[in-house]
Amino acid sequence: MIAENQQERLDASWISGFTDGEGCFHISINRISGMSLGWQVLPEFRIVQHEKDESVLYKIKDYFGFGNVRINRTDHHGTRKEFRARGLENLNKIVIFFRENPLKTSKKKDFEIFSEVIEMMNDKEHLSKEGLDKIAKLISCMNRQPKIKYLESSETTRSTL
Amino acid sequence: MIAENQQERLDASWISGFTDGEGCFHISINRISGMSLGWQVLPEFRIVQHEKDESVLYKIKDYFGFGNVRINRTDHHGTRKEFRARGLENLNKIVIFFRENPLKTSKKKDFEIFSEVIEMMNDKEHLSKEGLDKIAKLISCMNRQPKIKYLESSETTRSTL
Repeated sequence: MIAENQQERLDASWISGFTDGEGCFHISINRISGMSLGWQVLPEFRIVQHEKDESVLYKIKDYFGFGNVRINRTDHHGTRKEFRARGLENLNKIVIFFRENPLKTSKKKDFEIFSEVIEMMNDKEHLSKEGLDKIAKLISCMNRQPKIKYLESSETTRSTL
Repeated sequence: MIAENQQERLDASWISGFTDGEGCFHISINRISGMSLGWQVLPEFRIVQHEKDESVLYKIKDYFGFGNVRINRTDHHGTRKEFRARGLENLNKIVIFFRENPLKTSKKKDFEIFSEVIEMMNDKEHLSKEGLDKIAKLISCMNRQPKIKYLESSETTRSTL
């Protein structure tokens, strides 16, 4: 029966409900050399599960046809794995998916900001100082975001805060 | 747009996915006077959310047509609310729902034990010492169950452990 379940394809509404519970739309702005502005915008879609449920993460990967399953963290609760999708082409598909299969919790607000940033990146706005400032402000309105280093850096505080 | 979302009826697969993330099948055995054996079996289905997302709990209540939304706990993270369904008639409907809309994570195993106990209660097996012992052993195989007081009580340790 386990083998049978592992073959089974997920359905879209189940993924939407599971994401309302366990998913995360995350965007970081990382200092990186080699980029014209010295900062890289890195959006990610993640779903984290205890490793005992990693099979469901592989089913999600199979459903979308992209992304990776990898270790998220290991602590006294054991090892957690994550499905992670990166890259504009993939994340545009994630945006389309959640437009067609809407989230029902307040995570929808994070998704709306996420999709706005993806749209800006499609238009290459993240490559200008103005676009980067706008993205940083949008991210600061998302739920459970870590500190945004870009907003704290001395070169940006004057123009963005 | 928020008002529109609040009217919207959930779909079954979304509820199944959300339950895989946030739901809980819980069974306690509580000491209670007035019951023939002195112990009451209390199965519950719960979905807990931060109060900012209580609207989704009311949508789940509307979907099933039974259960209640109430405070789960309040701590430094704020107040959590829960949708809670109790009572054999309602829980039989919950069992039918998750047979038709199967869970995909290891929570499915908890559901299988839960539905076995509901079936035993339908047959009134929980009213005999043998049935109560069997239920206590089944519960002890569920994930994240608190200590089962029934198994620890002096009157039962000899026969069940």
